[in-house]
Amino acid sequence: MANGEFGLIDHIRATFARPAEGMVGIGDDCAIVPAGECDLLISTDMVIEGVHFLRSDAEPEAVGHKAAAVNISDIAAMGGKPVATFLSIALPKDAQGEWVERFLEGYRAISEQYGVALLGGDTTSSLRDVAINVAVVGRCGRGEALLRSGAQVGDTIYVTGPLGDSGAGLKAILEGTERTSEVEALIDRHYRPTPRVAEGVAIRTSGKAHAMMDISDGIASDLGHILRASGVGAEVDLDSLPISAEMRSVAAAKGWNASHLAASAGEDYELLVVGTSELPQLVDIPLYSIGRITAGSGIVWLEGGKKTEFNKSGYKHF
Amino acid sequence: MANGEFGLIDHIRATFARPAEGMVGIGDDCAIVPAGECDLLISTDMVIEGVHFLRSDAEPEAVGHKAAAVNISDIAAMGGKPVATFLSIALPKDAQGEWVERFLEGYRAISEQYGVALLGGDTTSSLRDVAINVAVVGRCGRGEALLRSGAQVGDTIYVTGPLGDSGAGLKAILEGTERTSEVEALIDRHYRPTPRVAEGVAIRTSGKAHAMMDISDGIASDLGHILRASGVGAEVDLDSLPISAEMRSVAAAKGWNASHLAASAGEDYELLVVGTSELPQLVDIPLYSIGRITAGSGIVWLEGGKKTEFNKSGYKHF
Repeated sequence: MANGEFGLIDHIRATFARPAEGMVGIGDDCAIVPAGECDLLISTDMVIEGVHFLRSDAEPEAVGHKAAAVNISDIAAMGGKPVATFLSIALPKDAQGEWVERFLEGYRAISEQYGVALLGGDTTSSLRDVAINVAVVGRCGRGEALLRSGAQVGDTIYVTGPLGDSGAGLKAILEGTERTSEVEALIDRHYRPTPRVAEGVAIRTSGKAHAMMDISDGIASDLGHILRASGVGAEVDLDSLPISAEMRSVAAAKGWNASHLAASAGEDYELLVVGTSELPQLVDIPLYSIGRITAGSGIVWLEGGKKTEFNKSGYKHF
Repeated sequence: MANGEFGLIDHIRATFARPAEGMVGIGDDCAIVPAGECDLLISTDMVIEGVHFLRSDAEPEAVGHKAAAVNISDIAAMGGKPVATFLSIALPKDAQGEWVERFLEGYRAISEQYGVALLGGDTTSSLRDVAINVAVVGRCGRGEALLRSGAQVGDTIYVTGPLGDSGAGLKAILEGTERTSEVEALIDRHYRPTPRVAEGVAIRTSGKAHAMMDISDGIASDLGHILRASGVGAEVDLDSLPISAEMRSVAAAKGWNASHLAASAGEDYELLVVGTSELPQLVDIPLYSIGRITAGSGIVWLEGGKKTEFNKSGYKHF
């Protein structure tokens, strides 16, 4: 489930009946529906023209890639294996030909890459804007999904890859930055995120991770979800955030603060993991330690060994 | 899965890999994902402002009711039990307050009535139009879902209730017909369809039904899906279509052909059932016999005992 806007999620939680039968509902990356010896993980995300992408700027294949990728990432965020997606598309007249065929080609390519079947959906017309909804179904062993609520005091906080590339790419698009090869690499990370499915499964099966989610809104916002769900606090070292060579170079040239961008910008779709200090030795994937879980609440940011007032509330879509 | 527009479904079937592991994909009311001793039934439907409803005309509660109802109906159409829905909503600024709260109230009321949990979703903004997507998850015993493909020569064709009420209600809205109590009843059937869940389960567990779907596009169109999936034909008696007293009265007053409207108009969400002649005695629900399955292909329409050229290709949304 994506993070809600307009306080609607709180309104829904207050007015709708709680789910029964050991189901997990609103409040994590996926809902959980128990099914025999396994748990089904289900999530859904909407992608709206003019809000999440501009048809004039984004390649249709990239929009298709990203629509599938961010949903597959929600399954990765629980340590699950994605099984199938359901694609609903509402198309205005001028998107009903080449645009949607190229969109589907991007969607198909990443679906095939991750072995995810397209099992259904809906197609309809719209008056003006493209609206896309993807629902994704994944699996993991019964009771094995990594929730947001298991972080423990003393745990280490990790991420699976560089932060801020996608946000820097978006900034470059919006500011009309000259398209050097480094800038192109960042923009590509924005349009074509990589869901960390194998990483999520490896982390879950290590048995040493306590909480996990994917980074869609930036760690300043996303880590807050884990902290509130777990009733703990955190210290994060801004200096320890992994930053790619491209991002470091472009940020230096443009005068951007790389570590602040890495902490606040979203849509990297790396995994944010909380677990024991042994975790990195047990999994054969990169894990970058960025901080630790404390007994407090909220995030204390450290920079140059000192507390800093940096307090970005996370990334907003354009 | 709703019926596709723009030939996109055919394009998807031709280009995407077939699902593995005994899953059923595109082409029935729901997809089927085997899960332990049960089958999960999953479907999704999109509802777009200006295409499926006019915000100026429809009560927000009714839009919420219908968005949930048509999805629950897809589960009923396989004889399954609905378990949970996932709701995605994109809202322009002027729908983010009272409109969406009233929408949610309609959605909540029918969800509670059918014991269906809201397990997740997405909320986002849109530039101009409300876009809604609902994904629904249901259950039935392994291999027990009633597909569209099982109709056999000699079977009887049934429906679970009056046809054409919803279409007549829509016609009354579009033509600005005076709102008598009978017209209001038809409009209510258009805005607040009743998913036939208990009926679907009773029909499935009788063991005497061979194919089933819900009537969303009108029997002229929907029966065609069963015939093509099953490789058979049908004779349908236009005179035998069940028609409500309200519809008969309004049609007479307005000069509408009630049985032609009943055959071609959609969105009644009654069930269309194909099974043996014993079926009605085995289930404690109304079943109206409207025709029989033949060895041919396509539908032969009978009126006054004679073949008729009536050949409506089904209902189009406004």
